[in-house]
Amino acid sequence: MREVAIVGIGMTKFGELWDMSFREMGIQAGLMAMQDAKISAEEIDALYVGNMSAGRYIEQEHVAALMADYSGLARDHIPAIRIEAAGASGGLALRQAYLAIASGMHDAVVVGGAEKMTDVGDAISNKIQSSASDQQWESVFGATSPSLHAMIARRHMHEYGTTREQLAEVAVKNHRHGALNPFAQFQKEIDIKTVLRAGMVAEPLGMFDCAPNSDGAAALVLCSMERARKYTDSPVRILASAQASDTLALHSRADICTFEATRYAARRAYRQAGRAPQEIDVAEVHDATAFCEIYQVEMLGFCERGRGGPFVESGATSLGGRVPVNTSGGLVSKGHPVGATGLSMVAELAEQLRGEAGDRQVAGARVALAENGGGVVGFDEAACAVTILEGPGARV
Amino acid sequence: MREVAIVGIGMTKFGELWDMSFREMGIQAGLMAMQDAKISAEEIDALYVGNMSAGRYIEQEHVAALMADYSGLARDHIPAIRIEAAGASGGLALRQAYLAIASGMHDAVVVGGAEKMTDVGDAISNKIQSSASDQQWESVFGATSPSLHAMIARRHMHEYGTTREQLAEVAVKNHRHGALNPFAQFQKEIDIKTVLRAGMVAEPLGMFDCAPNSDGAAALVLCSMERARKYTDSPVRILASAQASDTLALHSRADICTFEATRYAARRAYRQAGRAPQEIDVAEVHDATAFCEIYQVEMLGFCERGRGGPFVESGATSLGGRVPVNTSGGLVSKGHPVGATGLSMVAELAEQLRGEAGDRQVAGARVALAENGGGVVGFDEAACAVTILEGPGARV
Repeated sequence: MREVAIVGIGMTKFGELWDMSFREMGIQAGLMAMQDAKISAEEIDALYVGNMSAGRYIEQEHVAALMADYSGLARDHIPAIRIEAAGASGGLALRQAYLAIASGMHDAVVVGGAEKMTDVGDAISNKIQSSASDQQWESVFGATSPSLHAMIARRHMHEYGTTREQLAEVAVKNHRHGALNPFAQFQKEIDIKTVLRAGMVAEPLGMFDCAPNSDGAAALVLCSMERARKYTDSPVRILASAQASDTLALHSRADICTFEATRYAARRAYRQAGRAPQEIDVAEVHDATAFCEIYQVEMLGFCERGRGGPFVESGATSLGGRVPVNTSGGLVSKGHPVGATGLSMVAELAEQLRGEAGDRQVAGARVALAENGGGVVGFDEAACAVTILEGPGARV
Repeated sequence: MREVAIVGIGMTKFGELWDMSFREMGIQAGLMAMQDAKISAEEIDALYVGNMSAGRYIEQEHVAALMADYSGLARDHIPAIRIEAAGASGGLALRQAYLAIASGMHDAVVVGGAEKMTDVGDAISNKIQSSASDQQWESVFGATSPSLHAMIARRHMHEYGTTREQLAEVAVKNHRHGALNPFAQFQKEIDIKTVLRAGMVAEPLGMFDCAPNSDGAAALVLCSMERARKYTDSPVRILASAQASDTLALHSRADICTFEATRYAARRAYRQAGRAPQEIDVAEVHDATAFCEIYQVEMLGFCERGRGGPFVESGATSLGGRVPVNTSGGLVSKGHPVGATGLSMVAELAEQLRGEAGDRQVAGARVALAENGGGVVGFDEAACAVTILEGPGARV
């Protein structure tokens, strides 16, 4: 397989974008990525689009063809492919785009993700999000994303002594990071009292522990490594693009605090990249709720099983810590337009590796990891994509 | 890129399958394909699923994870990816599965497609199908799939002298073929008077000219050519897997009788396969309405532009003709469970190339072509996948 590089990144602000349609957001992110790469439309061989549920949010399926059309890319009749895997739609779209280049089929590809969630009310959005879990055995009985997720958090607290305050620390830290990100939905620091006093969504998860409904889009330009120097002096190498699955229904799992999709995807990614967890300088993980970050740092091998709570509490995942996590603000602060999320993670990391992350910059970041999950139990992990990136200065 | 072979095929009957759920259909087709290949679950590296709109039909997104889970494939935590491109979802899923093997990333992959359409009423289904066209400029104003399609048919009749009777001949021929297919939704011959006298859906398209709403699933097992002999003495080689796009909205096109997505996808496929239209022995094309077959045989180069009407009228596309088209019965007779359609075409052709098509067998078939479209204008062609296959006896 050929080596693949990221040569362009783009994203809209995340938030309640009432003056932008779904297609406008997607096109804006895509064109920003192409301008960043200084690549022309004629050089793009294919378009991949991650999107969870435009069919239900805006009554529009077939969104890859739509994006190709309205961005002008359909003029050359390039292939346009939509990938859906709930919250992991963006990460899976990236992996298919990666394979299209690694295989030798295509040389340069745009991969974007978008979701328009605020055209419907919150109750309807909650119902749409529930369609990521098992309709026949979970959502039909009224189980929602946060409620399933809260069950796991409670079990983790029981099993490992994780505290409510540790969950809240993640929310505080990610809002602190998000305050430094001009693209984040919430750019405001909050203190732990605010998190703990906020209204409950599903005990123990309060309002500031949960990702909001968001509109937004993110995009990348990928090309073969051999072509990358044509477009940029600072290509970001994709060392690994791995994926794994798990049961959709929570009740099918032997242990609800073990996320096998993340563990398997991470193991495959580390092996493909030839890297160990200790070599990761900066990471973005799928904190659909603040609690997710606690178990994801365990599953990714950044700390031992059950030690996620103390690990995040120690500051290890803060800017300046051992492995800064969610420097973008993560889903809880940056926002979570579902189909865009996985690509916005990789866009953040590519900025970090290019040394362009401004106030959020992790000094000397060379190797980065993105973990993007989709599915059951709130939001995570019947599908998981793990991407490992290497910065332009890493191998001289 | 590595060569890729089809080593297993499976499908459910198409029809109103009120006693089977979405997941049951998908699992049945997938297991049939694996049994046909005599491959074990442990040997499967990934699952690809084509589906248009389970989110709206049955309130279930994330259907690749669902299928992996309930078929037992999630036990090994393999990647599971859903592809959506309206009617072309199956064909595009096949192409991504093909790339996963051609790239060297995976060795054996199951690719399936499914749709459960009859759990909702026909009016709702029509609305869901309209979400494959441009929501903002077409479907929101009440344009439906058959009405947009009828416009093109009228234009083709005006431009090229195509007759209502020629359209009807396609319906008669495909129902004749479908009567020989035990998996078809309608297994009954009809005569031209019946077609012409039937109630109008959108003039000139009557009830027998249009594909029905259907439930059903189809699946294939793909592996690298070098592995294929382990599973079967009759591997079907994928000579080409190509795709192209076009504008989503009909009003953006220079000529509504020209389907650039098909033309480009076909051109790319013929080039990749090193074959010419004259070398195709048998084909399946996307006859969402009978009229589609008339323009698709033109776009694929089986006859000259504008001559599709006389070509089908001559019997050239019937069993026993120069290039039999839709020996399965096509969408109008076999049925059209949207996400399954593209894969059911390839399953039919693989049967033909293995010489196992029974009463529908095309004698000496060696090279076959499937054209699967999705999107605007009724059903076709903002996205198009063209696959060219070669039978096991073709190269000795």
